[in-house]
Amino acid sequence: MAEPLKVGLAGLGTVGTAVAHLLERGRDKLIARCGRPIEVVALSARSRAKKRGVDVKKYRWFADPVALARDPSIDVLVEVIGGAGDPAKRAVESALASGKPVVTANKALLARHGQKLAVLAERHGVALNFEASVGGGIPIVKTLREGLNGDSFARIYGILNGTCNYILSRMEQDRISFEDCLRDAQRLGYAEADPSFDVEGHDTAQKLSILACLAFGTKVDPDAIYVEGISSITLADLDAAAELGYRVKLLGVAVKTEAGIEQRVHPTMVPKDSAIAQVMGVTNALTVDVDGLAPITLVGPGAGGMATASAVVSDLADIACGVCTAPFGRPAAGMTASRKAPMQHHEGGYYIRLLARDRPGTAATIARRLAQQKISLESIVQRHDAGSSPSSGRSGEPVPVIMITYATSEDAVRKALVAVRRDRVISGRPQVIRIEKN
Amino acid sequence: MAEPLKVGLAGLGTVGTAVAHLLERGRDKLIARCGRPIEVVALSARSRAKKRGVDVKKYRWFADPVALARDPSIDVLVEVIGGAGDPAKRAVESALASGKPVVTANKALLARHGQKLAVLAERHGVALNFEASVGGGIPIVKTLREGLNGDSFARIYGILNGTCNYILSRMEQDRISFEDCLRDAQRLGYAEADPSFDVEGHDTAQKLSILACLAFGTKVDPDAIYVEGISSITLADLDAAAELGYRVKLLGVAVKTEAGIEQRVHPTMVPKDSAIAQVMGVTNALTVDVDGLAPITLVGPGAGGMATASAVVSDLADIACGVCTAPFGRPAAGMTASRKAPMQHHEGGYYIRLLARDRPGTAATIARRLAQQKISLESIVQRHDAGSSPSSGRSGEPVPVIMITYATSEDAVRKALVAVRRDRVISGRPQVIRIEKN
Repeated sequence: MAEPLKVGLAGLGTVGTAVAHLLERGRDKLIARCGRPIEVVALSARSRAKKRGVDVKKYRWFADPVALARDPSIDVLVEVIGGAGDPAKRAVESALASGKPVVTANKALLARHGQKLAVLAERHGVALNFEASVGGGIPIVKTLREGLNGDSFARIYGILNGTCNYILSRMEQDRISFEDCLRDAQRLGYAEADPSFDVEGHDTAQKLSILACLAFGTKVDPDAIYVEGISSITLADLDAAAELGYRVKLLGVAVKTEAGIEQRVHPTMVPKDSAIAQVMGVTNALTVDVDGLAPITLVGPGAGGMATASAVVSDLADIACGVCTAPFGRPAAGMTASRKAPMQHHEGGYYIRLLARDRPGTAATIARRLAQQKISLESIVQRHDAGSSPSSGRSGEPVPVIMITYATSEDAVRKALVAVRRDRVISGRPQVIRIEKN
Repeated sequence: MAEPLKVGLAGLGTVGTAVAHLLERGRDKLIARCGRPIEVVALSARSRAKKRGVDVKKYRWFADPVALARDPSIDVLVEVIGGAGDPAKRAVESALASGKPVVTANKALLARHGQKLAVLAERHGVALNFEASVGGGIPIVKTLREGLNGDSFARIYGILNGTCNYILSRMEQDRISFEDCLRDAQRLGYAEADPSFDVEGHDTAQKLSILACLAFGTKVDPDAIYVEGISSITLADLDAAAELGYRVKLLGVAVKTEAGIEQRVHPTMVPKDSAIAQVMGVTNALTVDVDGLAPITLVGPGAGGMATASAVVSDLADIACGVCTAPFGRPAAGMTASRKAPMQHHEGGYYIRLLARDRPGTAATIARRLAQQKISLESIVQRHDAGSSPSSGRSGEPVPVIMITYATSEDAVRKALVAVRRDRVISGRPQVIRIEKN
């Protein structure tokens, strides 16, 4: 049997521990597949003493992950420390610079420094694999990088954050508010104590920036992404969506337009019978639109120690088998700076929910402001709250108005709504949700 | 720029023509990805004169695909001739034996000779790629071979035949019979003039045999598969399924059991909210159950020239990039003969629909026969046809009885139904549909 592939494991949190276990448990299968074992030989983590279900005494210990990365006793570095800065960054750079392939689950690092790291990996002729950085156990990275590469991608869109999808699913199923649902998610461990990174869409944006780069060959640039979270979504929105044949999901979308690659993260109304609309709970999914083909959708566990570890081990197996693909599927030096398509130019259908003041002329004012921006309506529904008395429409209470527009531009919608607010015919902020068709 | 990868294309039907076009159209993208162009340099097909949208004069022509396969002017053979026998088989063998990698879309060839061809490829150190043989444009083969390989597969199941899924979807949506639906499918080009290969499940079985081998490392053996088609499925079955919270799909299932790898193709009741149940029309899908993980589902176009060509080109790109994986994800010589788990030992829930003679004692007789085989019922519904008069239950007309069993064995169900038929308390053949839980 050939020499084992010797792994240095930097980071012993949930994922690191699961990687160590999975390599041990899957040892025979990996030998059958790669012709050689894959073995952890050295570790690095913040505390050596902490209990974590891995017998650290069996391995060489490095207090400094950078020293581990450089050590000649390892063939490959697995980086599951996390964070865009040091020590993760320096450890990955050091491994690549000393000619060692790297497997990482670190989406923040890739979203911030992916381009530079890919150039470094290619210069040293080694692999930089990051299946675990997006979509946990779903082989999304491999599919975009190697599985569909005769094709031209037109659009990718997906549910990339389990916390948000769990909250939106439970709001709908159990008819509870965003706030109640978030509290529950925190209690169950599906949401962090500070949930803003997840619920405000930033986690999705980091992942989208990596996927957009794989799909469209543009340099990774998380700042090119328009980001909006789900904290403003109410049950009224979910109900209206259902009535109109949609479901609300937090999507990351990257689409080729004439103005460049449009990248955006926002609550989105998707047709109820689309594959992506069926994805409930913490599950993740990605749909890929390829020119001239029916869409391809991948669905599966987007997080969790074992799912993420499974992706890390697949990446390691590729390295043990001698497979070395360009990190982003093409030479990093040839990747173009992403021409940002500004969000104001986005075109599509819109859902708009307003609270209209119940006064003569309100409807005419709103209609005029929309017409001034050349926005046509596919439907408009004015409804009284279920709990209000039959006469409340005439009581001066604001009345919800729900409108679905035909394709128009973000710019037109924003301008029309600014004008409507200035006219003082609505109370509060209008709710706007973009519609994504299959 | 490095030398181009020179392709010999054997077969110029829908798929072959689409491969030629896609390589031309995607030329720049493939250069960016692989650092070298991929070019068709030589062709072989039955008739040189036939019109087909490819200018054959631009390429070297071989009347004999075996001569093409051996010719030193090509680096790789693409075999899209089809069929388990010659000339496809000899062409693939000749290419591999002369040290050339092969990309094939030929499921029949792989299902019959996959094992021997994999050994030949490995002996000569060349790739044998066959993404296009299963699931058209969905990267199913790559996912099973390279995307999930730290894991232990527990079960794979999928919709692998678009014709059957189209028929079952339309029967349900348009409330028409199997026969009417099949005629329509033939008219629209979704079904062959002789539809039996598709509707009797043999196409699904060939594909399943390839996937089972990738997932479980057993030798490809299509004869190990229990096969049952959809021609006996009626609207009454689809309606009953819907009422009980299921949908009927033709599935290929391979599952690890104590008795070995159980492989079966049959109409299956799947929970209506499962990812696989949502897949309608000609779309294909595969769900992979991995020990300790939530299931992963891939959905997409399972057939069509462009989808299949897209898979062929992805396989070519891997070869152009120098990637060479063992055809079935592990050394072919080490693959075990599949221990066939006999269908009689299959365990699961069953849907049984009988036409019971309307006579005193019938229910008691059926109940006794089931009890003798230790079959417990989860539900039983006796219903009169919607069109019959209220009194028809007592008119001597047979009455439909629908039963859902708790988990039991195939053997028990078969024995109980033989006994019930021998008792002459039912008319016609009982309908039996196996239930597959998520």
